[in-house]
Amino acid sequence: MSSDRVAQDGGLLAPVWAGTKAEAITADAAWLRAMLEAEAALARAQSRLGLIPSESAAAIDRTATTLVIDPAGLARRARQSASPVVPLVADLRQAVPGAAEFVHRGATSQDIMDTAAMLVATRAVRRIVGDLSGIMRDLCELAERHRNTVMAARTLVQQAVPTTFGLKAAGWLSGLMRARARLRELRLPAQLGGAGGTLAAFTELAASRIPGGQALALELVELFAEEIGLSAPPAPWHAERSPVTELGGALVGTARALGKPAIDIILMAQTEVGEVAESSEGGSSAMPQKRNPALSVLVRSASFQVPAYAQMLGQVGEHERAAGAWQAEWLPLREALRLTGGAAETAAELVAGLQVFPERMRANAELTGGRLVAERLSAHLGRDEVKRILAEEGPPPVAGELLDPEAYLGAAPELVDRIIATYREQP
Amino acid sequence: MSSDRVAQDGGLLAPVWAGTKAEAITADAAWLRAMLEAEAALARAQSRLGLIPSESAAAIDRTATTLVIDPAGLARRARQSASPVVPLVADLRQAVPGAAEFVHRGATSQDIMDTAAMLVATRAVRRIVGDLSGIMRDLCELAERHRNTVMAARTLVQQAVPTTFGLKAAGWLSGLMRARARLRELRLPAQLGGAGGTLAAFTELAASRIPGGQALALELVELFAEEIGLSAPPAPWHAERSPVTELGGALVGTARALGKPAIDIILMAQTEVGEVAESSEGGSSAMPQKRNPALSVLVRSASFQVPAYAQMLGQVGEHERAAGAWQAEWLPLREALRLTGGAAETAAELVAGLQVFPERMRANAELTGGRLVAERLSAHLGRDEVKRILAEEGPPPVAGELLDPEAYLGAAPELVDRIIATYREQP
Amino acid sequence: MSSDRVAQDGGLLAPVWAGTKAEAITADAAWLRAMLEAEAALARAQSRLGLIPSESAAAIDRTATTLVIDPAGLARRARQSASPVVPLVADLRQAVPGAAEFVHRGATSQDIMDTAAMLVATRAVRRIVGDLSGIMRDLCELAERHRNTVMAARTLVQQAVPTTFGLKAAGWLSGLMRARARLRELRLPAQLGGAGGTLAAFTELAASRIPGGQALALELVELFAEEIGLSAPPAPWHAERSPVTELGGALVGTARALGKPAIDIILMAQTEVGEVAESSEGGSSAMPQKRNPALSVLVRSASFQVPAYAQMLGQVGEHERAAGAWQAEWLPLREALRLTGGAAETAAELVAGLQVFPERMRANAELTGGRLVAERLSAHLGRDEVKRILAEEGPPPVAGELLDPEAYLGAAPELVDRIIATYREQP
Amino acid sequence: MSSDRVAQDGGLLAPVWAGTKAEAITADAAWLRAMLEAEAALARAQSRLGLIPSESAAAIDRTATTLVIDPAGLARRARQSASPVVPLVADLRQAVPGAAEFVHRGATSQDIMDTAAMLVATRAVRRIVGDLSGIMRDLCELAERHRNTVMAARTLVQQAVPTTFGLKAAGWLSGLMRARARLRELRLPAQLGGAGGTLAAFTELAASRIPGGQALALELVELFAEEIGLSAPPAPWHAERSPVTELGGALVGTARALGKPAIDIILMAQTEVGEVAESSEGGSSAMPQKRNPALSVLVRSASFQVPAYAQMLGQVGEHERAAGAWQAEWLPLREALRLTGGAAETAAELVAGLQVFPERMRANAELTGGRLVAERLSAHLGRDEVKRILAEEGPPPVAGELLDPEAYLGAAPELVDRIIATYREQP
Repeated sequence: MSSDRVAQDGGLLAPVWAGTKAEAITADAAWLRAMLEAEAALARAQSRLGLIPSESAAAIDRTATTLVIDPAGLARRARQSASPVVPLVADLRQAVPGAAEFVHRGATSQDIMDTAAMLVATRAVRRIVGDLSGIMRDLCELAERHRNTVMAARTLVQQAVPTTFGLKAAGWLSGLMRARARLRELRLPAQLGGAGGTLAAFTELAASRIPGGQALALELVELFAEEIGLSAPPAPWHAERSPVTELGGALVGTARALGKPAIDIILMAQTEVGEVAESSEGGSSAMPQKRNPALSVLVRSASFQVPAYAQMLGQVGEHERAAGAWQAEWLPLREALRLTGGAAETAAELVAGLQVFPERMRANAELTGGRLVAERLSAHLGRDEVKRILAEEGPPPVAGELLDPEAYLGAAPELVDRIIATYREQP
Repeated sequence: MSSDRVAQDGGLLAPVWAGTKAEAITADAAWLRAMLEAEAALARAQSRLGLIPSESAAAIDRTATTLVIDPAGLARRARQSASPVVPLVADLRQAVPGAAEFVHRGATSQDIMDTAAMLVATRAVRRIVGDLSGIMRDLCELAERHRNTVMAARTLVQQAVPTTFGLKAAGWLSGLMRARARLRELRLPAQLGGAGGTLAAFTELAASRIPGGQALALELVELFAEEIGLSAPPAPWHAERSPVTELGGALVGTARALGKPAIDIILMAQTEVGEVAESSEGGSSAMPQKRNPALSVLVRSASFQVPAYAQMLGQVGEHERAAGAWQAEWLPLREALRLTGGAAETAAELVAGLQVFPERMRANAELTGGRLVAERLSAHLGRDEVKRILAEEGPPPVAGELLDPEAYLGAAPELVDRIIATYREQP
Repeated sequence: MSSDRVAQDGGLLAPVWAGTKAEAITADAAWLRAMLEAEAALARAQSRLGLIPSESAAAIDRTATTLVIDPAGLARRARQSASPVVPLVADLRQAVPGAAEFVHRGATSQDIMDTAAMLVATRAVRRIVGDLSGIMRDLCELAERHRNTVMAARTLVQQAVPTTFGLKAAGWLSGLMRARARLRELRLPAQLGGAGGTLAAFTELAASRIPGGQALALELVELFAEEIGLSAPPAPWHAERSPVTELGGALVGTARALGKPAIDIILMAQTEVGEVAESSEGGSSAMPQKRNPALSVLVRSASFQVPAYAQMLGQVGEHERAAGAWQAEWLPLREALRLTGGAAETAAELVAGLQVFPERMRANAELTGGRLVAERLSAHLGRDEVKRILAEEGPPPVAGELLDPEAYLGAAPELVDRIIATYREQP
Repeated sequence: MSSDRVAQDGGLLAPVWAGTKAEAITADAAWLRAMLEAEAALARAQSRLGLIPSESAAAIDRTATTLVIDPAGLARRARQSASPVVPLVADLRQAVPGAAEFVHRGATSQDIMDTAAMLVATRAVRRIVGDLSGIMRDLCELAERHRNTVMAARTLVQQAVPTTFGLKAAGWLSGLMRARARLRELRLPAQLGGAGGTLAAFTELAASRIPGGQALALELVELFAEEIGLSAPPAPWHAERSPVTELGGALVGTARALGKPAIDIILMAQTEVGEVAESSEGGSSAMPQKRNPALSVLVRSASFQVPAYAQMLGQVGEHERAAGAWQAEWLPLREALRLTGGAAETAAELVAGLQVFPERMRANAELTGGRLVAERLSAHLGRDEVKRILAEEGPPPVAGELLDPEAYLGAAPELVDRIIATYREQP
């Protein structure tokens, strides 16, 4: 329908993920596919336990794989029930007339929607982990290469003491190591509980098919998780949203770990600082000379947004299934995944192409004529004497060696080594 | 490109706005159109001042109106500059070869993007105001009809004292009156400042065309605002984001004013309370008997999300144009507009079809055998005596008149009258 | 009790408001006093209407003014009822034994708590407006003095085109003008509704005292507002929280308007930029030479926090009085007021003492050998030619006049004039 | 100073933590003590490595333990440097004149502040874990006792299918198990990096004391962590805030896990539902009959706030130490710890005293005359037939057995067993 087409959206308002893999992986079509996969996996699992006929399961499986549904039309029909799964089940039942009664058998909408969400999230997270790994490789190389490249450490955005660019890059690596570890620790669960989280309809079905078969309902949950490729939950989590809260937390951690190099690069790339530059053109619509840190800005725009969206993930809901809090998770979950994924892919490009100017770093470090090592002078001459000296014009009248930023790097190179060693130990 | 198509999204994850007018009004295509309108308006305004040839302006105007651009492709090209306007200008220049040099003349990306955002917002807000007005008419009627319909007022979700359903409906109306008033007060400004917010390129252009014409740059801002139909800003607001913060605030107020009837209806529609029902079927995928408050749940899901998105709107940025904070506004602005708009349209349907059961209200009010008027008894018999009486089983041994909830409505009906009178006075 | 003392807090974790007027105005003691003022005002208003004996009202008024209550002890007793007003009323009743029955007569906890909150907020806002006015005077002077002081405008934190420091200061002034206007527009209402927002107990009381006196309940609301010095609400707003949402919005706007000069000053004060400095020492515990932008950092830390707290203000609650959302407003409201107030007082100090270095501004503007006016060159030589020229080493081979940043200020000085004129017109 | 006293605050605006252990553990005095402990631990660690004289370390240790500092006065002095550690170090140096030069030797403010924050957090978290464990014991007992107590499961706050109260309690237990596990996994690190995170001053000190002693700086970090009782970080984390982000995430998870029983109890305690009651009086200032779910409301008010505060924790900052983002962590960290701690202590009281009314649960489950098992009927009679039957008045004309909610509990009791088994396996 042409009016649908007009309303459909891509990344016009989010260049950070426009055209990235994260966009496609989390698109309406991908969610819809994941829902159908959940229905198919349920049928297969039920068939494996003998709860529904195997030919019906096969028909459902086949149909769910190939069924073409217009997401926009489905979405409109979802308004009546506040759930896209209700019209989806209707369509799927219609498409397998012979097995209609076995479609979605015993399940509730949230079983399918939550499972699909975790499936989409798992795929997006896997992709993000891949991108992080690439960035980390590049950062590791950068840290090694610049292990001893002197630059000014800055605190409160003021030059403070000397450090090395290698340690700065290793610091970015540290943050990403932690973020990747948390993403990898996620064990996103399938959801299967039936209307009230009691598995009642599955139990009833099992008992009707297999004498004494009630206990199969719990087994069904395991098989369903296995079929769909997610972890098996200890119990239905319709109203116990810690998996979603934790997923949100891991995405926030990742977005921030990506946002850290972004802000540092933006600041180092300032006209007056000039220590790094993005490789991209970063053109301006008005100023031909500008070389904007465009990729960093995109990554940063994502790192701002993800925490706001993640706050919506895992809110407390009422009783066995929530009246609003759960429904408010879908959109922010997609956005949090997509922005984090887009940021990862963008940051990969950013880091891979980063140009580093060690001479400017050195020049900036020497800009203050020795004031960068005032802490060191203090230790030698006393704090008050140094204050007195620094109040004078010109370079401090002390031995040149004492003033050399390179001679006051502390353990910066060793910290680089240590971080890289930890990185190398990670699987 | 087929891969683009796969990635494009509608309301699958947001049934609250799927298929609503708010969806189309805020879609990528609508933003893109608004950007082109801004370019056209700029050309027309410049032509009116004699800054560019009128035939060039006409060509630009004509082309901007008809140019077809694929938003997804543009979005990808936007990554390099962190701005969709840069490739848009390139396409527009290419499409009017004879007037290319006059396209976007003197402007900066943010001029066009902010103007387009305010245009989209103005249109969405107008639509929202229309929906609110419809809801308010219905609520006013509901409040009048049930001016004296007795029900229990509930505090901390416990029955407290008697009230009327009319006053509850009038309370909802109050919130919406305030929300609508704030939306109407918005005077969203056009943006025009040039690269650094100094209007330099416009000034230069004017001086080169018209001797002593420098002052025309300020006039150009007024004309541009007039041409595009937005208010003229006192100065460029690239980095002074109060218009966006205030727009966000007004949307939060509206989303909450809509969320208020939603939560009350959800609670009144509880199986054990049964005082209202949604007209819609609100079907369940598992339970044929359920009559879910689906529309209320959708509205509530929006009222949860809007404040989170709005928090992104108007964040502080650096210097003359921000490196991340501004770029983080686009997506949440769309979502805040769309969720509020979808909620308004959904709430209109909800309120129009609301079924009210006065008998259940009355029965619930009498459920506690007089305890609902314990405050009244206290005034007559003393608090301790009432506590003693209430500790006993059965209805309090006092005159029936004292126990009648209808006789203890206070000023509820008069408050209804007063709220309705205020409503009627609003334009 | 000594253990209470240990637990009590000042600004150790918030130097931005430590010792400021905002701290005292919003302290526990100030809230407690405001609650007692509300009780006293209620008694006076009831006495004016003849609803309670005038000598009782006088006794309540007198006692409420002088009663000393330990906030910490009261807070503990508040746990049982989830409201500090319940134990407060008990203490007040005990302190005026002869008039105990007329204390808090007909009111509900939320009447007193909301009224006290609005009273505290009104006082804090008045103070903030005063501080903003001082800052604005200083900024106006700064803008005038530096109307023509050339510096680089920066976009995406890159030098873009020339501007003046006067326009930057005028931009800060713009934001504060808007923020102050919104604060001044606030008309915070008193709250009076009784248990269910129906004024029932007041109506009953009036009827029992004055034949046909029911209608006095509505009048009581007006008198109460008058006595307490707040605006009279059209109806009780226990569950219609737009006054709180809007107060929150105005505080966010103010915090951001204060955060804008803070970030700009932090960036301009960078070692490599050196265009401004804070007058304060801004000492470091380690580095004697550092001159940290400490006040700017404090202001910025507040501007980050206020939006997060403000999100809590005005959330949707259930029925006539909320079960959690309202109670979650108190702490964030205090913090939002206090952080904004502390930021205003801190920013006043910051702006009053700001040191400006026009030579560094000029030197930075000339740092790129003419690239700052590349936009201008483009207009004269064409974009491609300029790109070619700029790719070469050294200054562009064009006439010096064209390269002068001072000759490409556009309407910057006129924009300063215009903003100042608008400022002067404000009352 | 009397004016200080006026400004100091306790829990007047947060009865959820007023007087709880969480209040004292996170008070200004506790933070101040933790900062002094950090200074003492640094001196001890440096002495162990021979970097400072052991008698100086002993003097610092002794003095830091006994020094009395007024937090409010210190806070005011902190304004100049945006850090409470700067005046603290001054005071401590003054108090140990003989060892002044060894106080805070080589450290930076953030080393002490972050270490103190992690120390306070560790203590608060330990206390929270203790309270959670108590709640979990009670919930386990409740789940066991009510393993088969029939009640209505509710979805979208509508009766859906039968469940047991035991499963509801076990669901609450599940959430808390997960929350406690995450709190226990936290390994909060000490912070030690010196001015720029390079350990330079420590390295220099070591080299000056011990020939070839540079490498001792890294060892010092380990010893410092050991002395203060926190984990040793792989590298300074001044600008890599994942420990803070993750702490925030764990607190959000806990606050929500506590908020879940709160909302369910509030809803079950409704006048019309009456399935549970809080043991406390929950008095109202107006209505003697009301039995407010006061503790639940307090817990819920905390669960709303914690996510907003936690959003501030771990924000991205600039370069080696942030200009605003870090300083914006202190207050929200205290509040997040305190609200979560207060909520845990309050929830412990709530759960311990919860009154359960199985007859009302059963009566409510039978309220709809068999509609609660409509899902079951559907499976037997077909969905359309059931819809037809349910549209009629009165109980469905089917065999009583089919209508018995107790006969359609599915795996509810087995899920209880499984959750309890998992709980028992946890250490």
